This record gives sequence, structure tokens and C-alpha cells, in this order.
Amino acid sequence: MRISELAAATDVPVHTLKFYLREGVLHPGLATARTRAVYDDSHVQRVRLVRALVEHGGLSLDAVRRVVATLEAPPPSRHELLGAAAATLAAPEDQGPPQPEVKALLGRLGWSACDDGPPAVALGRALHACRAAGVPVDEDRLDGYAAAMRSVAALDLDLVEDAGSPEEAVRTVVVGTTLLDPVLVALRRLAQEAESHERG
Amino acid sequence: MRISELAAATDVPVHTLKFYLREGVLHPGLATARTRAVYDDSHVQRVRLVRALVEHGGLSLDAVRRVVATLEAPPPSRHELLGAAAATLAAPEDQGPPQPEVKALLGRLGWSACDDGPPAVALGRALHACRAAGVPVDEDRLDGYAAAMRSVAALDLDLVEDAGSPEEAVRTVVVGTTLLDPVLVALRRLAQEAESHERG
Repeated sequence: MRISELAAATDVPVHTLKFYLREGVLHPGLATARTRAVYDDSHVQRVRLVRALVEHGGLSLDAVRRVVATLEAPPPSRHELLGAAAATLAAPEDQGPPQPEVKALLGRLGWSACDDGPPAVALGRALHACRAAGVPVDEDRLDGYAAAMRSVAALDLDLVEDAGSPEEAVRTVVVGTTLLDPVLVALRRLAQEAESHERG
Repeated sequence: MRISELAAATDVPVHTLKFYLREGVLHPGLATARTRAVYDDSHVQRVRLVRALVEHGGLSLDAVRRVVATLEAPPPSRHELLGAAAATLAAPEDQGPPQPEVKALLGRLGWSACDDGPPAVALGRALHACRAAGVPVDEDRLDGYAAAMRSVAALDLDLVEDAGSPEEAVRTVVVGTTLLDPVLVALRRLAQEAESHERG
């Protein structure tokens, strides 16, 4: 397809596509003449990924470039590919020291996850805020919430495994990370309403 | 206790406590002299609630006054009390038309919850955003996520039932609504990491 068709297929203006090409986040098309090139489905996928990263992930162009670099020299396992995608989404302020409370949780549940990565630091902070507000989360409750979120994560990973390409897998992780959180939060409110109604 | 002791017990300055008294969100103490009053544990609880509403719920003083009015003339059932507390937390932009997709979900699951309240509207919007980003959530996945959030809601409601007073129950709802979301989001990320590691 020509660049105007790529624009129509992705709903992204031609001048933005040219910008992506110049910035190296979109790979060049196959040149058919000095000023012409054709594009294929891999370009459609890439443009959708870049849009998802920028619009929904709030990523800078530098961060997008890191994700794209990961895709172009993919790590040997899908696990590492997803870890690299997740890492590019983390905010710099989410780095911090090991979280003893999180380490204890991971130990109780037998989970292989970092106790000093961005999610661990975010969890440590969120638990601290609950305590400060007078509603501490005790170990049993935390384990219960963790078990529920593990079943959420299993659904998340199923979707990633169903992805047809590494590109689609990364887009799924990025979009799922940023856009499924509000779905879950809204479902929690509805579930509270239903549960409360049932208990009377 | 005297007002200075109430300040020490709640970590809220005396001038802020006097402001809460003037604004009617903190009930008066028992007058012991023309310019003196004593306060008890009900005041400590109330101040903690007001702080949670303002700091963590981001509520305006008007909204706090509505929550306090709900507490002072509590609805007959705990279910209605919680509904009233949840309603004060909803943003005006979260009102909207009935959501057919949410109605269908509630029907499939047999949940008693509004299909046009703030959580339903938020869910409808979040699902639309996922579709627009090229990662639609199909019915099976949505039902799976909903089941996981129902077990989260059951834990939420247990905590509310354990609350010693209506005031504590409302504080738990408000703080739980605003501060537990980040806990769950962080747990989801850790669970993804653990799940991904296990699948290899």
C-alpha cells in the first residue's frame, strides 16, 4: 500500500507517518521509485503500536524508540520481551529501594518477582498510604487481594500468548497496562454494589 | 480531651480543627466553660474521616458535608449508607446514559448493580478506549475479570462489615475506594511478572 493508504488504514495523518519515519520509530517501506515506497501489514501494526505507546501509555518518543529497539533485536524469550516492554512504561520516580513488606508477600505466595522494581515500590508506597489513612491492609487481606490479581494476570498473559506477533504482544502489554486498569477499577465498584446488595 | 490533645491525637493542627468546627464537619465538644470544651473518641474518628475524604478522596468541603450529613441521619441499611458514601465520591462527569454493554454483563453474571451509575459509565468508557486502541475486551475475558474483581469486592465488604461504627465503615469505603486501587494495580503488575516467569 502507499503512504496515503497506510494513513487511511491507521487513521494517522501522512505528515505524522513521515515524522515517525524520520524519527526511526517506523521502519522504511520498500522503495519503488526515488520518492515512492510501499508499505505492508507490518507498518500498520507498528503505527498502531506507536500510537498506543504515545496516546495511552503517555510515552515520550525516546521511550518509544527503546520499545522499538527491543522489538528489532528481541530478547530470546517472550518473558524477557514483556519485561522490557513493562520497564519502558515505568516512571523514573517508581525506582526505589527493596520493599521488605513486598518481599515478605512474594515469599508467602512463592511468586518470582522483583522486590525492588517499579511495581514493588509502587505497592510499598500504596500500602503506606493506606496505613497513614487509618485503614491498614493486614497480611491476610493483602494475600487475598494478591490471589485475585493473580487470576487477572493469568487472563492478561493468555491474551499476550494469543498475540500473533511480538509487535502485537508488546502492544497488548502496553495497552493492557494502561487501559485495563480503569476497566478493573470500574468492575470493582460494580462488584461492590452487587456484593453489598446481595448481603443486604 | 482538650482541643490541643485532639490535635495531637489526629496530627491535625488546632486551627484546622477550629475551621472544621466552624464549617460544621466536626461536631462540637462538650462545653466545660465559656471558651472550653472536651472532645472524645467520636471526634478523633470524625477528624480522621474528614482528613481521608479531603486528602485521599480529593473531596471538596461541600462533599464532605454531604457525607457527614449522611452519617448524622444514617439510612436504615448499611447497603444504603455505603451507596450514599460511594455516590459522594463520584465525579459529575461520571454521570451518563445507560450502558448496553454493561447491562449485558450484569445480566450474564446476575449482578444487581446500576447500568447507568458512575461505575457503569466509567466501565463503558474504559471498554471503548480499549477497542479504539486495538485491544478489545471480549465477553469471556470481561466475565473473567469481573469474577476476579468480585472476589476483591467480597474482601472489601468484609472489611466494611468488621468496622466498629458507621463512621469507620464510611471511612473504610472512602479510603478503600481511593487508596486500594493503587494497591491492586501494583499487585496486578507483580502478578504478571510472577505469572510470566512461571510460564517461561
